Amino acid sequence: MLLLTKEDIKKVFTMKDAIDAVKTAFKLYSEGKSVVPLRTNIDVPKFQGQSLFMPGYVEDLNSLGIKIVSVFPKNAQKNIPSVPAKMILLDGTAGDVCCVMDGTYLTQLRTGAGSGAATDILSNKDSKIGALIGTGGQAKCQLEAMLSVRELEEVRVYSLEYEKSYEFAENMQRELKDYNAKIIPVKSSDEAVCNADIITAVTTSKNPVFDGKKVKKGAHINGVGSYTPNMQEMDEYIVSKADGFYVDSKEAVLSEAGDILIPIDKGIVTKDRIDGEIGELLTGKIKGRRSKEDITIYKTVGISVMDIVTAYKIYEKALKMGIGVFADI
Amino acid sequence: MLLLTKEDIKKVFTMKDAIDAVKTAFKLYSEGKSVVPLRTNIDVPKFQGQSLFMPGYVEDLNSLGIKIVSVFPKNAQKNIPSVPAKMILLDGTAGDVCCVMDGTYLTQLRTGAGSGAATDILSNKDSKIGALIGTGGQAKCQLEAMLSVRELEEVRVYSLEYEKSYEFAENMQRELKDYNAKIIPVKSSDEAVCNADIITAVTTSKNPVFDGKKVKKGAHINGVGSYTPNMQEMDEYIVSKADGFYVDSKEAVLSEAGDILIPIDKGIVTKDRIDGEIGELLTGKIKGRRSKEDITIYKTVGISVMDIVTAYKIYEKALKMGIGVFADI
Repeated sequence: MLLLTKEDIKKVFTMKDAIDAVKTAFKLYSEGKSVVPLRTNIDVPKFQGQSLFMPGYVEDLNSLGIKIVSVFPKNAQKNIPSVPAKMILLDGTAGDVCCVMDGTYLTQLRTGAGSGAATDILSNKDSKIGALIGTGGQAKCQLEAMLSVRELEEVRVYSLEYEKSYEFAENMQRELKDYNAKIIPVKSSDEAVCNADIITAVTTSKNPVFDGKKVKKGAHINGVGSYTPNMQEMDEYIVSKADGFYVDSKEAVLSEAGDILIPIDKGIVTKDRIDGEIGELLTGKIKGRRSKEDITIYKTVGISVMDIVTAYKIYEKALKMGIGVFADI
Repeated sequence: MLLLTKEDIKKVFTMKDAIDAVKTAFKLYSEGKSVVPLRTNIDVPKFQGQSLFMPGYVEDLNSLGIKIVSVFPKNAQKNIPSVPAKMILLDGTAGDVCCVMDGTYLTQLRTGAGSGAATDILSNKDSKIGALIGTGGQAKCQLEAMLSVRELEEVRVYSLEYEKSYEFAENMQRELKDYNAKIIPVKSSDEAVCNADIITAVTTSKNPVFDGKKVKKGAHINGVGSYTPNMQEMDEYIVSKADGFYVDSKEAVLSEAGDILIPIDKGIVTKDRIDGEIGELLTGKIKGRRSKEDITIYKTVGISVMDIVTAYKIYEKALKMGIGVFADI
């Protein structure tokens, strides 16, 4: 059994690797070549927590596994992670557990890579300006994802507290300096999105975090927060007016994402607002951007195939490179 | 995260410890103090395998976890285990994975301990002769379980091949010598069960493995195989005539065990044949053996609460004794 920490994953797997892995995952998912049973949720009311067990299987890659994610908000008081996660991989040819890896970083990486894949397929090639709304745990991978698929000159960072935006931008300027983009903190979401070619929202907001009317023609938007029916990051204007609306999984987005469920509920759009899945774009089943002027949206809530495929590719590469610790149990 | 091998488990946990743990599990289960979601099965037709994901939670002990068991019969050709298993424990107060342990030995141990607990509660105190039918992977723990709850003078071992029975008996005589019982291979199941006070059947048979008419008055029987509807170890005579019929879980036995489903199907008994659960005996809700002459049966298919509670007690003891390897992921 191979054990992989966040640092091990970083050593073997770049954002570009992750984007390739997630593209494979999206294709296999949309072709119906994955097995994704309903996840099992166990409530732990005694500690106001919940643990989610998300198994999955992709036959083509012989990859089988389960991600275990717990949400224990009160952990923050104890100064320990409030959303601890582990990925458990099984050898799909023989059934035994073959790898346990950090699931928190895996989630950040594959979620970033999902936006990266969508941005690569949907945004204009000559995109120069990025906007990132949100500076939480997922923000760094989201930022790196947009930087790794387009040669951006500038990314504007906005969050509710300017100090956080400032600190985040400063750190990212240093950590992601190889991408040669200016990372700039800004004081309003208007400042962030006006004239931006790529916009990524990654917050836990229950109210729209930017004004859809300020989005320029030709922009591409990644909606990463809004993973429950009462969360909303994108306003109804942009959701209804965008030229293309694509998702990781129709089924998952239509059952979990307030961004689409709230406007459906209000009768502003129907579920046909969704033009298709990224996997369908990748296999050529449907078309994406039709002109430079199109505004495109990628809405994601995350699917377990992204975890399984990404984790499996990480595991393979770690084996090849001799990274990680083996435990003989 | 603590990693525990089979050898680590053996170092910290005796069969007596396991029987205590399983008694606790049975009580909590029958009192409704456990959360046992439906297990998730993923088929792997490409390798004729299947992986089972069995999560569970016991609030009273803050123990949360999932056992992952795969059944890949073709592994035997590759000389690797055909039923590999791992137990993943989560810290029930904070949600993160805190322990990964060998699940194959855990299963053998807790299944043996289940029979041990039932035998302790149901068999006559002065039992002297045991019979063990089956010499597979689960047999040793079953044998040790009966030896650890009663001072047996002799245990007769029977399996389809005498050579296997002989070899098994010889090994067990050496490994379990501290129990001071003679372990004797026999050539027929009649020879095994005639005059036996405790009978344990642990096979994968689809046909009864002993003649119920040969069971003496006052005997106690553990039916451990027959964990699918088409498997049967106990004949309809003994299932219908025994004075008491107890189970680990009514719900599980009535949905999986051919031992009871086949006679129900034939109209020989109804589901009321089941007198109750071991947990109900332990809490005093129902009565068990009423006379020295009673023949009692314990039928088990295994429940995940047995895994969770036993694994959690092993984990706690290993922590206390400093056994196992820590991995910081």
